[in-house]
Amino acid sequence: MTIRIGIDAMGGDHAPEAVVKGAVEALSLVGADLVLIGIEDQIKAQLASLKYDANRLTIRHASEVIENEDKPVRAIKSKKDASMVVGFEMLKSGDIDALLSAGNTGALLAGGLLKVGRIKGLDRPALCLPYPTSKGFSVLIDAGSNADCKPHNLYEFAVMGTIYARDVLGIENPTVGLANIGAEEGKGNILMVDTYPVLKASELNFIGNVEARDIPEGACDVIVCDGFTGNIILKLSEGVATSFTGMLKAQLMKTKKNMLLGMLLKSVFSELKKKMDYTEYGGAPFLGTEGLIVKAHGSSNAKAIKNAIRYAEVCVKSQVVERIREELGRKDLEAARTALAGDQDEN
Amino acid sequence: MTIRIGIDAMGGDHAPEAVVKGAVEALSLVGADLVLIGIEDQIKAQLASLKYDANRLTIRHASEVIENEDKPVRAIKSKKDASMVVGFEMLKSGDIDALLSAGNTGALLAGGLLKVGRIKGLDRPALCLPYPTSKGFSVLIDAGSNADCKPHNLYEFAVMGTIYARDVLGIENPTVGLANIGAEEGKGNILMVDTYPVLKASELNFIGNVEARDIPEGACDVIVCDGFTGNIILKLSEGVATSFTGMLKAQLMKTKKNMLLGMLLKSVFSELKKKMDYTEYGGAPFLGTEGLIVKAHGSSNAKAIKNAIRYAEVCVKSQVVERIREELGRKDLEAARTALAGDQDEN
Repeated sequence: MTIRIGIDAMGGDHAPEAVVKGAVEALSLVGADLVLIGIEDQIKAQLASLKYDANRLTIRHASEVIENEDKPVRAIKSKKDASMVVGFEMLKSGDIDALLSAGNTGALLAGGLLKVGRIKGLDRPALCLPYPTSKGFSVLIDAGSNADCKPHNLYEFAVMGTIYARDVLGIENPTVGLANIGAEEGKGNILMVDTYPVLKASELNFIGNVEARDIPEGACDVIVCDGFTGNIILKLSEGVATSFTGMLKAQLMKTKKNMLLGMLLKSVFSELKKKMDYTEYGGAPFLGTEGLIVKAHGSSNAKAIKNAIRYAEVCVKSQVVERIREELGRKDLEAARTALAGDQDEN
Repeated sequence: MTIRIGIDAMGGDHAPEAVVKGAVEALSLVGADLVLIGIEDQIKAQLASLKYDANRLTIRHASEVIENEDKPVRAIKSKKDASMVVGFEMLKSGDIDALLSAGNTGALLAGGLLKVGRIKGLDRPALCLPYPTSKGFSVLIDAGSNADCKPHNLYEFAVMGTIYARDVLGIENPTVGLANIGAEEGKGNILMVDTYPVLKASELNFIGNVEARDIPEGACDVIVCDGFTGNIILKLSEGVATSFTGMLKAQLMKTKKNMLLGMLLKSVFSELKKKMDYTEYGGAPFLGTEGLIVKAHGSSNAKAIKNAIRYAEVCVKSQVVERIREELGRKDLEAARTALAGDQDEN
């Protein structure tokens, strides 16, 4: 059966143009059929100048658009014919196998919960992001969907992150680290102190706390944390890299000799930028919902959308959702789950 | 009256050699008298080959040493004649005006609380760190002493950080930002959501939430957060900068032409490194205790110690401790403090 990927054509800073273009470009690279969801006239206008196989790229009209400024839950509830909301319904009904959007992140996460629903037995889905390191990629989970968490949430994130690292990224027996401010057990805030023994007692390949300093070097395959910390890690890394590049450039411009150097260095910078570039990997899955939802960066260009579509297909083929459902349904882990539920009541 | 600065001669990775050498080097740069606290024989052995004014640099013998591996509270309580503990007593009795240590951070913070004590009316002292940005420095508070905080703690940090930025760094009407994962009010975890209105209602120059992405650009003068987040910000920034430099160097080594470039770039790198280098600013004050405690980096060399001593003198002259005491004693802020105390009970 052919995989079908739904794409929120109206989501993102450069929608619908970049999204439509990216979808057309992806068509020759994936086996999946693609459905562009959004305002038909606008999508058709973009498609007019492009060549594509109309049997594999279709349009599903949706008359409304969720804007970046919209309050997530209110938007999901009131804009019933928004492209994103229609996408959720198509995913829920099995009409598509994955939904990709570069739109309002809060709305995508809220809608995933409200419209698509959680996998049975799971408390909180989480945003899972490939984090570029000097060794390759680590998986950062939660990257920003749950600002406040309990230990059992972090355990679930660790399970989902492990499945993702193993089945999508192909990492054998992925190492799991707890993002923390000290190496030894007992370090950190209450959440991290309480989560440590839970991960230690689990079947996961837990290597202990990972200090923030060691994250960019690729200290572990799966970095587990609450969504507040995860989002700080993600955004700060971008900020430091940008600021560092800026300072380096400013230093280079100081003398004429250095200006020349700077020009010569352009090729080096562009290779480095490529390594750090989100358009190269394109998407972050929201794991734990009953259907695959992939978030693309808000400022995605056509190339980023193209790569995110390829990536969504890989996730569908890897059966990430099914694996998470299986893992959470395992009988032999019931004891651990009961202990965690106790912890949940207590908190 | 001459200022007296006590220096934990046994604290830090390169103690006592680097500490003693740094103190001797600082002597010609400060007006203060210096007291080296630690094992007399070892200090004397280091001093033997150095020239210094014995009237201004004296030794206070202390027979024990708190190691980096020691449990902070236990070490403070059991090693009664440790250099750090003797330092606390000298600070408490007014024998010295500031205590500088590159030793066990946890012990320094715990001892500051247990032996020196909090300023009356203050709930939690905090580690305050100059954070290098592309514009200069921001003040990061709390940089790691209180992993779990309440809104009233963050308010106190904001007050202390403002005083520090104004009186030590000389920034007029310093801007205060809340480290967060979204710009608007209402974003973030429970702590940040609850802290926002407190800072907004205060007399501080509060500019709202500051996203982690904008911190390295110098988005505000005082970055307020809990110690867990602050320590993540601090360590991750170091990690990203190190990793980025490494990747850049690796890229440069790829071809012979680039190797040549890399050699030419050395001067640029060294200037950049200097900007990011902790040895240039040397110290972080632990604000909120009844006496000035300054933490130097654990890996401090003589130059870092020298700069930290100069810096401690500036802090003493700026009367940071007195200003914090005054500000916390202000009658007109009683209403705000009562409201915060309510918040404290509730939590």
